[in-house]
Amino acid sequence: MADLIVEVITVGSELLHGLVPNTNLDLVGGLLAEAGLWPSYHATVGDDPEHLGEAFRTAVHRADLVIVTGGLGPTQDDITRKVIATVFRRRLILDRAVLDQIRGRFRERGMDMPPMNESQALIPRGANVIENPRGSAPGLHFAHLETEIFALPGVPSEAEAMVRAYVVPFLKNRNPGLVSGLRVVRTIGIGESALAERLQGFELEEPELRLGTIARASGVDLHVSASSVDAMWLQGALDRGERKLLERAGSHAYALGSQTLAEVVAEALLNRKLTLATAESFTGGQVGAAVVATPGSSRYYQGGVIAYSNESKETLLGVSKETLRRHGAVSAEVAKEMARGARERLGASCSVSTTGIAGPDGGTPEKPVGLCFLGFSSAGEGEAAERFLFGGSRGDIIARATFFALDLVRRSLGAGVAWSEPSSRS
Amino acid sequence: MADLIVEVITVGSELLHGLVPNTNLDLVGGLLAEAGLWPSYHATVGDDPEHLGEAFRTAVHRADLVIVTGGLGPTQDDITRKVIATVFRRRLILDRAVLDQIRGRFRERGMDMPPMNESQALIPRGANVIENPRGSAPGLHFAHLETEIFALPGVPSEAEAMVRAYVVPFLKNRNPGLVSGLRVVRTIGIGESALAERLQGFELEEPELRLGTIARASGVDLHVSASSVDAMWLQGALDRGERKLLERAGSHAYALGSQTLAEVVAEALLNRKLTLATAESFTGGQVGAAVVATPGSSRYYQGGVIAYSNESKETLLGVSKETLRRHGAVSAEVAKEMARGARERLGASCSVSTTGIAGPDGGTPEKPVGLCFLGFSSAGEGEAAERFLFGGSRGDIIARATFFALDLVRRSLGAGVAWSEPSSRS
Repeated sequence: MADLIVEVITVGSELLHGLVPNTNLDLVGGLLAEAGLWPSYHATVGDDPEHLGEAFRTAVHRADLVIVTGGLGPTQDDITRKVIATVFRRRLILDRAVLDQIRGRFRERGMDMPPMNESQALIPRGANVIENPRGSAPGLHFAHLETEIFALPGVPSEAEAMVRAYVVPFLKNRNPGLVSGLRVVRTIGIGESALAERLQGFELEEPELRLGTIARASGVDLHVSASSVDAMWLQGALDRGERKLLERAGSHAYALGSQTLAEVVAEALLNRKLTLATAESFTGGQVGAAVVATPGSSRYYQGGVIAYSNESKETLLGVSKETLRRHGAVSAEVAKEMARGARERLGASCSVSTTGIAGPDGGTPEKPVGLCFLGFSSAGEGEAAERFLFGGSRGDIIARATFFALDLVRRSLGAGVAWSEPSSRS
Repeated sequence: MADLIVEVITVGSELLHGLVPNTNLDLVGGLLAEAGLWPSYHATVGDDPEHLGEAFRTAVHRADLVIVTGGLGPTQDDITRKVIATVFRRRLILDRAVLDQIRGRFRERGMDMPPMNESQALIPRGANVIENPRGSAPGLHFAHLETEIFALPGVPSEAEAMVRAYVVPFLKNRNPGLVSGLRVVRTIGIGESALAERLQGFELEEPELRLGTIARASGVDLHVSASSVDAMWLQGALDRGERKLLERAGSHAYALGSQTLAEVVAEALLNRKLTLATAESFTGGQVGAAVVATPGSSRYYQGGVIAYSNESKETLLGVSKETLRRHGAVSAEVAKEMARGARERLGASCSVSTTGIAGPDGGTPEKPVGLCFLGFSSAGEGEAAERFLFGGSRGDIIARATFFALDLVRRSLGAGVAWSEPSSRS
């Protein structure tokens, strides 16, 4: 099954114009991974019959499975049905049962079906209709030579429901033997090339595992994947691969799978019955926003202070005028006093602080753009600060400082995945 | 120029596996639009030499311009350079000058260049090197038959800098005749169908302008575009289209082009010589983070308080225990007291506050998930609050509240684009 070539085609001019993020590939790709399949190609074309026709011809030439999303709506922009009819020489036939369903859907919402929606009941000859539980556009499924083609609506929630209810079961039935799996080990604070050096030899030791690295703003994710007809073997091989990745990444590993750094920090705080406060200067609240992105954050997050001006560092956090004068706002000393001030004033057990220069202006030879100090304070152990120099744009620098602030909390609490038992995961 | 067929290829297995959102098409597409070009095809392939080779062959067959992002890093996963060498029969030659630049980049950061980075100085014979101002991977530019091919790194900020500095100027020079243009009017607080009603008849009045609407988390963007060999005509037509969009959107229009809501707020504060403070509960700092995303924000942003717990609303913002008890934390009264507290304690001329229920838990029939109150306070006019009910996930609700908080500042200051002179823009 892993040998099947899968292509996803997403249709819509808005997707090509840098106007709307294209989420359907991620959606379909993520769902197919559950069936042990990974797309090999993803193509996006606008609402142009000629371009979609070319994409279809390319896809059936190189892929065994083609999943198309978009272009099934009722307007003139919606070209998928017509292009299928032309390219695959399948006449469009009005399907009365489908038409009744569409009418019924409008009636349920107390509306008459607009005449233009009738076109959604035109089905290419011989195609199966895929029911749409969430909208009016039905999906289509047919085979062309050796290639299976699924056409789904572009609305993500509709496409998702139809992949889950129809496409994945169809594929699993068709290939009952083979199973596949993917494990992800997330790291922070170590570069891609340094990790690659630590991983040297891995591929020789584990020739049946595919190894990959993904550089993200938060750090590098390592992943191993494999396919097999032997589910027991697969499980064992993935466990072994994951354990090796954890060993080699050491304390840089902070999470498995899709768990976020904020979730790891949340778990560590809850396990230790601690509460957190934040004191932010140049990150402007992004550390706090990252903390509250996790549901249930009110159980451990007390709140914070965004001390953007020097005055607010003094008045809201009690940083001393003398420290600011002597060391400057971007210094280890100010980071420590900010952290202590936030912890004390918010009555939290521990706290983290940020002060730095996000740029593009405001840098000096001594304190360049990207320089940043992160502070940590805890009731028992006082204050500590670390110095960082981040590269990239203003947004990159703020985002990196935010991740490293969360990681400072994680490391200060001794949390991570390096010590957990990877084989206990399924 | 609008007739050139453009294809964007993004390379990376993680992009196909539903692990990482693919933002480079949006990025490149948005930048090309500035040069009057829109991609016709977008293809994504994994780190598989055979699939990338197939994508290259398909692209040069159907496109005049091909922009590839990704696969230029130093690891074995990074295949773009090698595949270019194979598919286009261009031997890789070590470029000493590029190697020195890469070494210099590491030296600046006090590091030795890891040996594997040497591969980034391998340049396909005859290709131009595109300088990378933000990272170690240089870009490549060469022509194959009639097709121009640009290979750029996958890191978005690096690719962005290189498209701006090299690709767009190259394309503008090459096609001096046809000009194209795009105007965007950004709106907030009005739905797509309500806007569509206000825009009825536009396409009949302006048959030569293409009109589109794009629903974003922040609101709906309206755009008009056109191409012509007559630059004067184009300018006039776009001015007229933009003015009509502004008239019909009314006070919902907050910005033109790619200007963000935070930038509009920044301009309004600077023009009026005002300073801003924030008081956030459930948005956890995201309003502050949105404010400081704009360079130079220290000129008008004093800072803020993230009052996540009820205690911190009292101790850090002076919200009265009585108000909290009587109305609850999620109420117009608390929003107003939070805003006043932040303004006074941070010594700002005005302030905005957020309190609400982000979910997924914590809702009640009276105060459901998504309920939110936003407060505004100014020295002259006291406090006001507005009630909102947002839908979507926890992240959606927080993001929407953040946009509407910025918009409350904008509206309170009487800022926007409805009153500006659109024809003064170039």
